[in-house]
Amino acid sequence: MLRARCLFRALRSCSSAPCPRHGLSSKLSVRDALGSQNTSGERVKVQGWIRSIRSQKEVLFLHINDGSSLESLQVVADSIFDSRELAFGSSVEVQGQLVKSPSKRQNVELKAEKIEVIGNCDAKAFPIKYKERHPLEFLRQYPHLRCRTNVLGSILRVRSEATAAIHSFFKDRGFVHIHTPVITSNDCEGAGELFQVEPSSKTKISEENFFNVPAFLTVSGQLHLEVMSGAFTQVFTFGPTFRAENSQSRRHLAEFYMVEAEISFVENLQDLMQVMEDLFKATAMSVLSNCPQDVELCHKFIAPGHKDRLEHMLKNNFLIISYTEAIEILKKAAHNFTFTPEWGLDLQTEHEKYLVKHCGNTPVFVTDYPLALKPFYMRDNEDGPQHTVAAVDLLVPVVGELFGGSLREERYHLLEQRLARSGLTEAYQWYLDLRRFGSVPHGGFGMGFERYLQCILGVDNIKDVIPFPRFTHSCVL
Amino acid sequence: MLRARCLFRALRSCSSAPCPRHGLSSKLSVRDALGSQNTSGERVKVQGWIRSIRSQKEVLFLHINDGSSLESLQVVADSIFDSRELAFGSSVEVQGQLVKSPSKRQNVELKAEKIEVIGNCDAKAFPIKYKERHPLEFLRQYPHLRCRTNVLGSILRVRSEATAAIHSFFKDRGFVHIHTPVITSNDCEGAGELFQVEPSSKTKISEENFFNVPAFLTVSGQLHLEVMSGAFTQVFTFGPTFRAENSQSRRHLAEFYMVEAEISFVENLQDLMQVMEDLFKATAMSVLSNCPQDVELCHKFIAPGHKDRLEHMLKNNFLIISYTEAIEILKKAAHNFTFTPEWGLDLQTEHEKYLVKHCGNTPVFVTDYPLALKPFYMRDNEDGPQHTVAAVDLLVPVVGELFGGSLREERYHLLEQRLARSGLTEAYQWYLDLRRFGSVPHGGFGMGFERYLQCILGVDNIKDVIPFPRFTHSCVL
Repeated sequence: MLRARCLFRALRSCSSAPCPRHGLSSKLSVRDALGSQNTSGERVKVQGWIRSIRSQKEVLFLHINDGSSLESLQVVADSIFDSRELAFGSSVEVQGQLVKSPSKRQNVELKAEKIEVIGNCDAKAFPIKYKERHPLEFLRQYPHLRCRTNVLGSILRVRSEATAAIHSFFKDRGFVHIHTPVITSNDCEGAGELFQVEPSSKTKISEENFFNVPAFLTVSGQLHLEVMSGAFTQVFTFGPTFRAENSQSRRHLAEFYMVEAEISFVENLQDLMQVMEDLFKATAMSVLSNCPQDVELCHKFIAPGHKDRLEHMLKNNFLIISYTEAIEILKKAAHNFTFTPEWGLDLQTEHEKYLVKHCGNTPVFVTDYPLALKPFYMRDNEDGPQHTVAAVDLLVPVVGELFGGSLREERYHLLEQRLARSGLTEAYQWYLDLRRFGSVPHGGFGMGFERYLQCILGVDNIKDVIPFPRFTHSCVL
Repeated sequence: MLRARCLFRALRSCSSAPCPRHGLSSKLSVRDALGSQNTSGERVKVQGWIRSIRSQKEVLFLHINDGSSLESLQVVADSIFDSRELAFGSSVEVQGQLVKSPSKRQNVELKAEKIEVIGNCDAKAFPIKYKERHPLEFLRQYPHLRCRTNVLGSILRVRSEATAAIHSFFKDRGFVHIHTPVITSNDCEGAGELFQVEPSSKTKISEENFFNVPAFLTVSGQLHLEVMSGAFTQVFTFGPTFRAENSQSRRHLAEFYMVEAEISFVENLQDLMQVMEDLFKATAMSVLSNCPQDVELCHKFIAPGHKDRLEHMLKNNFLIISYTEAIEILKKAAHNFTFTPEWGLDLQTEHEKYLVKHCGNTPVFVTDYPLALKPFYMRDNEDGPQHTVAAVDLLVPVVGELFGGSLREERYHLLEQRLARSGLTEAYQWYLDLRRFGSVPHGGFGMGFERYLQCILGVDNIKDVIPFPRFTHSCVL
């Protein structure tokens, strides 16, 4: 009784919203309309934005896009439908019959019976101009409008598809997904490139520190994943990470996404590298098979020649060299480096680029870095005199360093010594605890998600593969 | 040639890590071992932590858990394997034969041929005690260790499963996933409960504002999703959101997760409510079918009686009442409210609880709130004299408000007036732009993910359904 009354009133209440335009036609996305097998005049309704318009004597051709695919749906209408409101960028609803197209350019087209303009587009003020191919740099000025272009539409669909593929990759392999925290009181690892978090001055909270302790934006979920890897043997996280780096480079952002995984009972880098290579390839294959047109657009207009480069990466096994060997290669190189390669020094971007090229533009793992270069948690190889840790980076074409990983120091006493040497023993008591209660050999890695997209699409600037880029001097919207 | 050399060296380099313990036995997760059809003595290797140990005259029984399921694998060993190191919490690797168990408690057990202790557990110092059922409140003191208990293991597996189910729900329906930004320069919506972001004092960056403008942690991805809904007709985001709220309540966190969706060409709340109800039910069904034991554990030990309550929610249609009707119900109620219900005032927690109970503990949508109570972007119903907007909240048992949504004001002139009245015209010029270039009727909603988990599991305190809770005075790890 109650329910009936409630529902009755609800229907009345909802009808205070504008009258639904629903007719008897079934609503279809452009993607579904294009893929429809039923082209014998099925009555449908399609909604979207006008991407092109061409008026002939008796016929009007529109192309309607709704973001469900790169391809637009061709609408064929009697010229009596023509009006000034039917313009590039306007939103419309078209009802009509889905029929086989006589043209070879598309299988299906929509024979319009009714066209309704929903929202006009002020063409003069609209920064995206009809039939122009705007450079990515130009579009960056309009973060609220650039998604309405073909190229950003394609990049964002690929990003969405890659996100889904990464979640599936880990789920299919039995990994447990963990939301590692964004706000953290760990301040040591990033060493000076951290964002601090405090209640805005507008809040009524008087405490100096909302959290009682200084709080920062995370630079990595690794340590928190390690907590979880004491209970779950396979965990992953996929979330935002932050660096207050004063950089305007083509491969750095202040806010970017990382895919991180941690695996228990892993005892050698080989097993970790296998997961990294599988993740790289499985995600790319999934993107290629689910949005071939979007990838093709990028390879055709943004990065000519990149299609072959990607195929080459996917077809071949990734290479593996040690850091020590990498230094040997660089030293022997007939190349003038700005930074002279030397055992014990970090690899610079120019070195990474050289190594990838030297390896035939195939992704290459570099393993076993000097202990002195790496953080306290990486596993000591106990070698010498060139003392290394079980670390691994993956270098790839276009972006250089894409993955970073390591075995973690699971041995209590060795970890204790390393922490003591860095004066971190007290702050990391909880981390030491993980090694007191059923410690296991474990390791993991992180992959920069935007760099991954750059690498598979060939997009040169990282600001073009994230919806709303944040970097020094820029936080628009 | 190069590759061979590289690979050869790599293998050498990897072998500097500790010797792999791999034998010829195939490695199985506990979950896979338990579900194995092959119990005719298949030789396998299982790794995990000891959850229980029972020593009889000639036989030793261990239960091994690796986080892949709530259920542990029973290991049966000759008592010669017994040792003091085989203790609760220790990590072990067991090799042996997978056989049919003679006991009715399990189908499969592992006949041990080799047991190796990987990491000891210091039982005295370990806060989790053998065979004790620790209250959730006690476990909250050990955020780095509590995942090693059955109950947190179950909650985190459910959280992971629900995350995957939500991604699938939207993907299957053609939604595009968008990473809306965490750092934003929009400071208006949250009105005073924002966290501000600045480079830590340790950084070398001298600028007062790293981003040139004051930057905050997002309170919602809605406005950014609306940007996208001008190009994609269905978008969603699932990420962290923040409130600098001075609250220690059972349903508030400073950092929590929101699932938000935005749909273009939606013209009535009914269509939005349908998606919300479908999301609620599809996710719950997926969790129930993929981790029945984990849900059962919660329903049995944390929230007795909640199983029936959840079934009731899933079986019945959610109810719909208008805000005006809700106020009428509250006014007629024979109940002493602390806050007297009055048209034009916000619903308080006590009111929400009463309404849910009044509706038979079924989730209930409350629609069409007073315009004066709601933000500028909600669509004006243009009614009167009681002026409302097309807003909707979903109230549910256990947590109260779970979803909030609305149609958005897509009409340029009405939005312009609302912004002007709030003095926000300049700051939201970009938002007005969205209505100048092919505006469409649209709407969306947000669901608090932790509250959702509370609601389906019956967990009373929100701090127990997130891996690392952040709230006033607390940011541990």
